[in-house]
Formats: sequence, structure tokens, C-alpha cells
Amino acid sequence: MKNYLLLCGGVGGAKLALGFKEILSPENLGIVVNTGDDFTHLNLKICPDLDTVMYTLSGESDVSKGWGRKNETWNMLSALSKLDGETWFQLGDKDLATHIHRTKLLQSGYSLQEATSILSKLFNLPDFIYPMSNESVETYVQTKNRLLSFQEYFVKLQCKPPVTDFVFKGLDAAEFNHSIDLDAFEEIVICPSNPFVSINPMLQLNKLQQHLINHPEKVTVISPIVNLNSLKGPTAKMMTELGQDVNVQSIAKFYKNYSKRIFIDSSDQNELTTITHMGFEVCLADLIMNNFQSKVNLAKTIVDHLEES
Amino acid sequence: MKNYLLLCGGVGGAKLALGFKEILSPENLGIVVNTGDDFTHLNLKICPDLDTVMYTLSGESDVSKGWGRKNETWNMLSALSKLDGETWFQLGDKDLATHIHRTKLLQSGYSLQEATSILSKLFNLPDFIYPMSNESVETYVQTKNRLLSFQEYFVKLQCKPPVTDFVFKGLDAAEFNHSIDLDAFEEIVICPSNPFVSINPMLQLNKLQQHLINHPEKVTVISPIVNLNSLKGPTAKMMTELGQDVNVQSIAKFYKNYSKRIFIDSSDQNELTTITHMGFEVCLADLIMNNFQSKVNLAKTIVDHLEES
Repeated sequence: MKNYLLLCGGVGGAKLALGFKEILSPENLGIVVNTGDDFTHLNLKICPDLDTVMYTLSGESDVSKGWGRKNETWNMLSALSKLDGETWFQLGDKDLATHIHRTKLLQSGYSLQEATSILSKLFNLPDFIYPMSNESVETYVQTKNRLLSFQEYFVKLQCKPPVTDFVFKGLDAAEFNHSIDLDAFEEIVICPSNPFVSINPMLQLNKLQQHLINHPEKVTVISPIVNLNSLKGPTAKMMTELGQDVNVQSIAKFYKNYSKRIFIDSSDQNELTTITHMGFEVCLADLIMNNFQSKVNLAKTIVDHLEES
Repeated sequence: MKNYLLLCGGVGGAKLALGFKEILSPENLGIVVNTGDDFTHLNLKICPDLDTVMYTLSGESDVSKGWGRKNETWNMLSALSKLDGETWFQLGDKDLATHIHRTKLLQSGYSLQEATSILSKLFNLPDFIYPMSNESVETYVQTKNRLLSFQEYFVKLQCKPPVTDFVFKGLDAAEFNHSIDLDAFEEIVICPSNPFVSINPMLQLNKLQQHLINHPEKVTVISPIVNLNSLKGPTAKMMTELGQDVNVQSIAKFYKNYSKRIFIDSSDQNELTTITHMGFEVCLADLIMNNFQSKVNLAKTIVDHLEES
């Protein structure tokens, strides 16, 4: 069995990661998670994508929303609202415990990797979830008039302002998480997460970027665009605003320096020839993961293919 | 009508404060609250006595417990417990909103007085609650082997270790809250709070101490000892450990430099003569406040007496 490293954002990536968790032994799986949208809110360090992955893989997530915890209550937030407090970021009572505990761990001197290992264990998960970096990388969204912090753009303004560019602050001081031995993984799978704000922050980390550029044959992209639209979130909207066609070719172009293989949805097979001509091996699959079985099926399709290639 | 300033700790003091709130106009009432047991916990500034007073006076308190909020839930704490987090301090979900909002206000540059005014307004209370100081005074409990922070002693160790002394850190830099014009109050009432850890931190603040020493005739003590025991909490236990008799005379001795008048419970009237000989005017009343009406009745008894004196 090969070893698989997933590059993963939040909701969309976590779905595929759950599929991989079901079919692989933990020792064959590593999941690198974007931390570019981490932020400090109400004195708490919040890592939305790490939480989404952790909750999803541990069966703790609210599957209907894709983020947050199941059987969640909102009593703190409701009381905070009555105090005219800051309630634009949804903080459930159980979710809050994660932020409080992680913040405490980080203040006690643990690295984000160590805090993630500790939390993974507490959520009964193997130690296979890795923040992309122990250092802070902050994603900013450039709009026509203002540079917005990611959460302000994503949650407060609900992705409404048109995007012109993205800025990642902190890259000079940030290193790719040194707990991850890239050479130990024969296959690297880029999950169907938002390329601009979930995957690109990772790709800006020098060590990972160089590894992908040097080994594009071991990198497989799972398209986040299906049937000319985003599987989830603002990917398609961002592509349009950046002047890109909303199709799989644009995704292939985005990743062309890093990857030689792409999974596209069967509904997009008319693009197969064009993308093949771009130098990609193109694989068809059903990329829509709207229930547990479809997540497992997609992971199995990918693994079956990569084990033979 | 005279103006009344209460010196008040948590649960016991808040009961009498509620009685005063019911019978006085807000413009005739000020409530100075101990902040010596404030602490920072899980990155949150927590002011237990201010919260107890605020919740009690706004009808938001859990009357059965005396602290915390009514209709409280504990979902964050329960989730934190599953993460092996720090759960020794009881943080309800609604209560948490207060700590989160106050912490945010303080970090935004508001003083504790300003944050208290803002919170009071949000709890539909007049602006008559004053933290004893804007600066931090920290109460430590000296036990045989260790100096314990107050919350560690009070909550974590449930007041079990015998006390030998008390230490107040930060007094050099702390000033009595300058929003309180002591000369504007004709009467100062020391609530039946713990003398050692609720009232004494205030008395260590120079401006208040000097004012009481210079005007003991305007200071009335309400005994926290009734029928040879504490009304509430560890007062009697502490008195014993400090080698004091658990009776009203010991309370009178404690306050003798600051006050010329004391209300004692009818059950303690055998001490009346002795305390009178100590230079106190002694007033008998029913000091046990176990329902709303008894709180109002006691406040009325005190005010009626002081209006005539």
C-alpha cells in the first residue's frame, strides 16, 4: 500500500478526507490542513479548517452544515448577542470548548502541531492531521476598495465583494510543518477545496511548493469544479471575478506546475481532451459527495487508480 | 433622603444590595463591589463579585445557588471536560458571554468602571455598581504550606486548607475607584460579606480606608455572623482558624476603627452590652435573608434607622 498525503481545506476537503480515512490504515494517511484562515477572535485562537477536518473525521460534525459540531447549542452566542457583543462569527457552545482548549494549549507553549495532536487524540482520531505550518499565515482578500481579512470577507461579508487578488501575510516567517516528511508519501492528493484560499496558502510554503514542482507525477488534483460550478463555496464566483472561465480547464491551469494528474467529474468529460493536451492524465469519476457512501466511493476510486499507476 | 454607599462582596452582599435597590431611588444608592477575587481564567477576565451583584440586581441570577445565571446551561464546560480542559471553575454558557464581552471591552481600552457601566446598562440596571478599583488587587490565602490564589483556595480546594493569613497583591498600584465621590454619601453600609476576603481588600485601598477612619459615625456594619455561625461561606471557618471567637464581638473588633454602628441578629442579643461597651451603637434586626421579602425588610429596617439617626 502506498502512503497518501492529502492537501485539504475545510468543508469540501474534509468530505474526501473522511472517505480516505475509511479505506486506508492511519499509517498510510496524512492530512495537511490549511491554516491560512485561522484567526484570533474574542481572545480565542480559531482554526476553522482544522476544526472542520477534526469534527468531520471524528463523526462530531454537523453534517447538514458541513462545519461546526453536531447536537450543538448556541446559548453563549445568544447571551452575547443580548450584550451587543460580536456575534458575526458563529460560535457554538461545544465548539467553543475546542477553541478555549486549543488557545490554552498554545499559550502553555505547545506548537500548533502539538496542540493538533493532543486535540486529535481527545477526539479519538489517529495522529494524522497536520496544520500546514506552525507559524501564522494570514489570508487577505483584495477587493476593489479594501483589503479584507479572510473571515471578514468569508463570514461577515458572506463573500459578496468582488475579489481582485489574494494576499498571504506571514509567509516570510512561516515554514511548511516540519513534522511532515514529504518523501514518505508516494502520492499527494489535492482535495476539491478552494484553490485560491484553501490550497494556495499551502502552495506558498517553500518546501511544499518545491516538492510539488519537483514531483508533479505524484500529485493528483481532485477538481473542485463540477459541471461548470463550485462543489461548495465561492470558488466559481472567485474564478469569474478573476477573469477565469468556470470550468475544469481553469483548475488544470491553476495546478499545472504542481500536478500531472486530475480527476474530473463525468459531467465534464467534454473537457477531457483539452486537459489531456495540457499534459495531464485525466481520470473520470463521480466527484459529488453528498452522503457517506459517495465520499468512500470517491476515495476508493482514487486509491484504486493510484495503487495501479 | 440620604445617599447610601454599600460595600459589598458576592453572594451575601448582593442579597442586601437587592433589598436596597428595591427601596431606594437609584440616585440615592451606590454599590462598591470587591474585585479582589477577580482573576484571568482561560484567557477571560472574570469578576465573580461584580457578576453576582449584577446578576442578582437584574433578576438574572440563579437564586438557588446565589451565583451564576438563571436558566443556565453548561454545554461548553461539558465539552471542555471531554477535552480534559480546565473545568474546576464553573462557567455556564450564558455566564461565559459576560466574561467574553467584558474581556473584549477591557482589551478595547475601557476601564473596569467603564466596562461595568456598559454591562450594567445591558442588564437594564442603573449605573450604580462600582468596582472598588480600576486596578488589579489580587487576594491570596496563606495556608500552612502554601500561598494560594483566592480562586484556587475558594473553588478548587473548596476552602479546605486552614488559613493563617491573607495577602493582597497590587495594592501599591491600586487606587480606590475615583468615580466614587465618598463625600456624596451620608451613609456607608458594610454588607454582611466575608470581612477577610470581600471587605478587607477594599479597606486596604488608602482613600476608602482614610475616609472610614475619619468618619466612623457614618459607617454601619451588618454582621455576617448570626447565631455564632456564618450567614454564608467560610467566614466562621476562617475566624476559627485565625484564633478568633466565632461571634459578633469578633466582627465588631474587626471593624472597630472604621465604624460606630453595627446591626446584629436578634439571636445574638446577649452580645449587645459587650459590643455597646466597645463603643458601637448596636441595632437588632433579623439578618437572615432567605427570600426576597426578607432582603427588602432588612434594607428597610437599616434605612429607616439611618434616616432617623
